[in-house]
Amino acid sequence: MRRALELAGRGPLGPNPRVGCVLLGPDGSVLGEGWHRGAGTPHAEVAALADARSRGASTRGATAVVTLEPCDHTGRTGPCSLALLEAGVARVLVAVQDPNPVAAGGADRLRRAGVDVVTGVLADEGVAALGAWLPAVRRGRPFVTLKLATTLDGRVAAPDGTSRWITSPVARAHAHGLRAEVDAIAVGTGTALADDPSLTARTLDGGLATHQPLRVVVGHRDVPAGARLRGPGGELVAVRTHDPVEVLRALHAREVRHVLVEGGPTLAAAFLAAGLVDEVHAYVAPVLLGAGPAAVADLGVRTIADAVRLRPVEVVPLGPDVLVVAVPELAPSPTLEEN
Amino acid sequence: MRRALELAGRGPLGPNPRVGCVLLGPDGSVLGEGWHRGAGTPHAEVAALADARSRGASTRGATAVVTLEPCDHTGRTGPCSLALLEAGVARVLVAVQDPNPVAAGGADRLRRAGVDVVTGVLADEGVAALGAWLPAVRRGRPFVTLKLATTLDGRVAAPDGTSRWITSPVARAHAHGLRAEVDAIAVGTGTALADDPSLTARTLDGGLATHQPLRVVVGHRDVPAGARLRGPGGELVAVRTHDPVEVLRALHAREVRHVLVEGGPTLAAAFLAAGLVDEVHAYVAPVLLGAGPAAVADLGVRTIADAVRLRPVEVVPLGPDVLVVAVPELAPSPTLEEN
Repeated sequence: MRRALELAGRGPLGPNPRVGCVLLGPDGSVLGEGWHRGAGTPHAEVAALADARSRGASTRGATAVVTLEPCDHTGRTGPCSLALLEAGVARVLVAVQDPNPVAAGGADRLRRAGVDVVTGVLADEGVAALGAWLPAVRRGRPFVTLKLATTLDGRVAAPDGTSRWITSPVARAHAHGLRAEVDAIAVGTGTALADDPSLTARTLDGGLATHQPLRVVVGHRDVPAGARLRGPGGELVAVRTHDPVEVLRALHAREVRHVLVEGGPTLAAAFLAAGLVDEVHAYVAPVLLGAGPAAVADLGVRTIADAVRLRPVEVVPLGPDVLVVAVPELAPSPTLEEN
Repeated sequence: MRRALELAGRGPLGPNPRVGCVLLGPDGSVLGEGWHRGAGTPHAEVAALADARSRGASTRGATAVVTLEPCDHTGRTGPCSLALLEAGVARVLVAVQDPNPVAAGGADRLRRAGVDVVTGVLADEGVAALGAWLPAVRRGRPFVTLKLATTLDGRVAAPDGTSRWITSPVARAHAHGLRAEVDAIAVGTGTALADDPSLTARTLDGGLATHQPLRVVVGHRDVPAGARLRGPGGELVAVRTHDPVEVLRALHAREVRHVLVEGGPTLAAAFLAAGLVDEVHAYVAPVLLGAGPAAVADLGVRTIADAVRLRPVEVVPLGPDVLVVAVPELAPSPTLEEN
């Protein structure tokens, strides 16, 4: 399974899960390996069967070790459950069960056909390997990471609006690494107009990273013709609403699994107040401003007992700055419908 | 010298420096040891000479290893330079030269009398052992530590004024440890009236620590009769000004070497704007409020280039919180006169 998880990690992030599969012969020898290379390409199980065939190995009586439950539906590719049955696989070890009601049921079909199926093998690692995809599919909406980049006194800009740069080059490089992993970056129109950000993922040498997330602008105002947002980078998407639920619906429809909400304070507050933040990445710089906009606009909190409390999962010194990765103490609402 | 530094650490913090002394015979054997036990008691050198005498050891031709240059003035005790000469000491190794113009000159007097004096032995460790005392005496004013305890969005209280508790018990216990080391804690009258703090140093079991710093209230309003500040704890000192220079003058006159400025935002801003903060201890809690007073009031900074930039010296995770210890990038002005 560790090898299968390693293979899964080779796949691209994006709308489809990263899945790995190893086929073992009755003697434990590796017959074939495969991983999912992205939408429209063969699933990991099918890739591993093809690999075994190309090696001339027989898969009759083999064990398939796969990081996610084999699918049972026909999408752009056929159901993996059937492919495994046709190949004569006798045993399937699964890390994580498929949360997607459309695709799930592969384990059941295999069991009914007499295959020995064991689920939950290295489940924690399997969950981790799926990243934002798993909670996004479970909740029917993108996983939301809220990014804050603040001074020690919680400011995101000086009174005149200048904010370049509060955080250090080390912290900014780290933030670009996260941008290169998400499917979309969202900002409010206020930030889009005031800061003229490009919202691209850049490499250390300043070039564009291979993967560019969608650039999402939330609000009713237009992005001007000459804006950096219209320059090289990901597709520009205008979502003309102030409702975070509507934003996530629109992104879910575009198969966005992971969205990074980058600002400003109004958009951050809207997502926090709606309980639609799954994770906070707070870059805190050793800088004091004493004035200027705060990182988060009014949340409606009036007394300390009602504060939004987070549980830190990681504290990372980045040059002079500190990154605090934290998750809300109360799990955010699971689906859009329940908001 | 390492042994002398260890002995120095046994002395109390406060108006006088922590100093240790080891007397060595010509064969390298330890003849006597001493350390300074606080104002009015014998200096480390005199204590070490007394220790040697009580052991029946002759100090003729001995080497004195001492963490701070022997004093050359008569205060509540006589000059150590003379005591060493009278004891027939032939060699003196010193870590740090005395910055106090009144007391300095001991090395010169010893040299003139034919004693071999070496200064700068383990100087960095010597400086560290003297803590806030050394910069305080050099600058002629207390060393100033500014403590902030904020949410991730830089708030120190909710809109209704409640702030108990933003930080965790672990962070608060850490802060009490610092209180037990300083000579004074300062707050503005606004904080004194709004929060009714006791400003005591407490042990882990909630009892009062042995050492209680002065409790300093800065501003023109009176502390009410029933306030916790008038309950058990250190002496209450009202400094009726808003000028940080005046505050430090008053505290210097009381031989305060280290003052902890604990709030609120107005007092913090006054010290920062005056360039009179030597060190910032920022406890940052994974909490978001979205409204309420910010940690630091207006500093007069209008654009990002004028931000107060700090250099972190330590990042300490404390339970769910993070402590960032940082010093201003520009050294604060050395004396009160230059402000």
